[in-house]
Amino acid sequence: MRVTDAEIAFAETLAGLAGAAIRPYFRRSHGLEAKADASPVTLADRAAEQAMRAAIEARFPDDAIIGEEYGVREGTSGRAWVLDPIDGTRAFISGRPIFGTLIALVADGWPVLGVIDQPILGERWLGVIGRPTLFNGAPTTTRRCPDLAQALLATTSPALFGDDQLHAFEHLDAAVMSTVLGGDCYNYACVASGWLDIVVEDGLKLHDFAALVPVVEGAGGRMCDWAGDPLTADSIGEVVAAGDPARIEDILEALACRGH
Amino acid sequence: MRVTDAEIAFAETLAGLAGAAIRPYFRRSHGLEAKADASPVTLADRAAEQAMRAAIEARFPDDAIIGEEYGVREGTSGRAWVLDPIDGTRAFISGRPIFGTLIALVADGWPVLGVIDQPILGERWLGVIGRPTLFNGAPTTTRRCPDLAQALLATTSPALFGDDQLHAFEHLDAAVMSTVLGGDCYNYACVASGWLDIVVEDGLKLHDFAALVPVVEGAGGRMCDWAGDPLTADSIGEVVAAGDPARIEDILEALACRGH
Repeated sequence: MRVTDAEIAFAETLAGLAGAAIRPYFRRSHGLEAKADASPVTLADRAAEQAMRAAIEARFPDDAIIGEEYGVREGTSGRAWVLDPIDGTRAFISGRPIFGTLIALVADGWPVLGVIDQPILGERWLGVIGRPTLFNGAPTTTRRCPDLAQALLATTSPALFGDDQLHAFEHLDAAVMSTVLGGDCYNYACVASGWLDIVVEDGLKLHDFAALVPVVEGAGGRMCDWAGDPLTADSIGEVVAAGDPARIEDILEALACRGH
Repeated sequence: MRVTDAEIAFAETLAGLAGAAIRPYFRRSHGLEAKADASPVTLADRAAEQAMRAAIEARFPDDAIIGEEYGVREGTSGRAWVLDPIDGTRAFISGRPIFGTLIALVADGWPVLGVIDQPILGERWLGVIGRPTLFNGAPTTTRRCPDLAQALLATTSPALFGDDQLHAFEHLDAAVMSTVLGGDCYNYACVASGWLDIVVEDGLKLHDFAALVPVVEGAGGRMCDWAGDPLTADSIGEVVAAGDPARIEDILEALACRGH
């Protein structure tokens, strides 16, 4: 599917709506509730998703919507807008301005457009299949990484890995120059702009990773699952992002060590 | 020792000098070198410390200087300026604007003034013994935390703990609502402003913690070592910051579980 300029502009409009809904809640102690799974969530999350869903329903009533907060609205077009209003809820409630709003357009299961928006800093990464990724409107690219031993790796938290996956991650961690924790979706934006080399995570849902793929790949990087397969709506949530596609095999080899 | 308005203004001047030295290097891939201990360090680190040391030598030639990059210059006044130009080097080289410049004035071993400065975002926390902590010039305070089970805890990385300390940290981690990783000195600033409840770390050096104490305590929080003793120039680097001093005993009790 070819993404049109009008659709790109609409995705940016969604990011703007989400940011306007989120900003009043940042660094306020009110608005916190507990979800059934005990992860923290904010009124900002809900306000932002509601604003985006209303805009999509008005403009593209035949498209599906898959949102982190309000679930699935079925569509008939074969397209889905996949929304995570606040990726990095812990960062948000900790006062760190490195959470992000994730917006993806998925066509026939494939992410074809992605936005990573940081509404406090006014930073926006926009990726569209077949086009160069933009950071605040200017093209941005990943960097080369000649050797894993020179790589800067990020992951949000080792506690988010399953046991086998943690063992695999530790192999990779031992092979790279340095590992930085925290960061959520912001890590993938940093890969797209050539500040980080690798992100590896486990347990991501479609709304966590769909927007990342066009951003990282349009910047020259590559994303895949831990088996090296492309990420689609059916992926199980083991995610690799590499700024330099030449390092993918090394990363997958390290991650293949799951035994104890 | 009473800190004068002129000394406070001078500390802010130092932060400005450091920020001006650091900003040109942020999100540039050049400038990285490896230290003997393999931690990443940047030219920005050195340029910022040089700028601050030169200013201190000109203005307070009798004061000692203890810098993360260039070591100790002895003094005769009983006072020391303790400098960490970039605390959170991994955050810095990853493109995350949540590292910080730390500036402390230590008198007879006690931190009496502290600055946590984030030069990319233009955020500055200033703490002075006996005065309310300021965030960008306005008073800022910690928040109450009625129960550990409602606490938001931060630590930069579990990999920075010794084995026994990691075991102790895991006790605390299990007792709180949620734990966020990464963050370095920015976590302590977030405690001072009431966005985070607790930070616990191990292995901090004087230049890592001296500036934090006046910032957190002037905002209503408390800092101590894992035995509950005040942090001084002789502390061994086990650090606790609590926004609500009423939770200190609960935290220390959890951290006392070091056996396996």
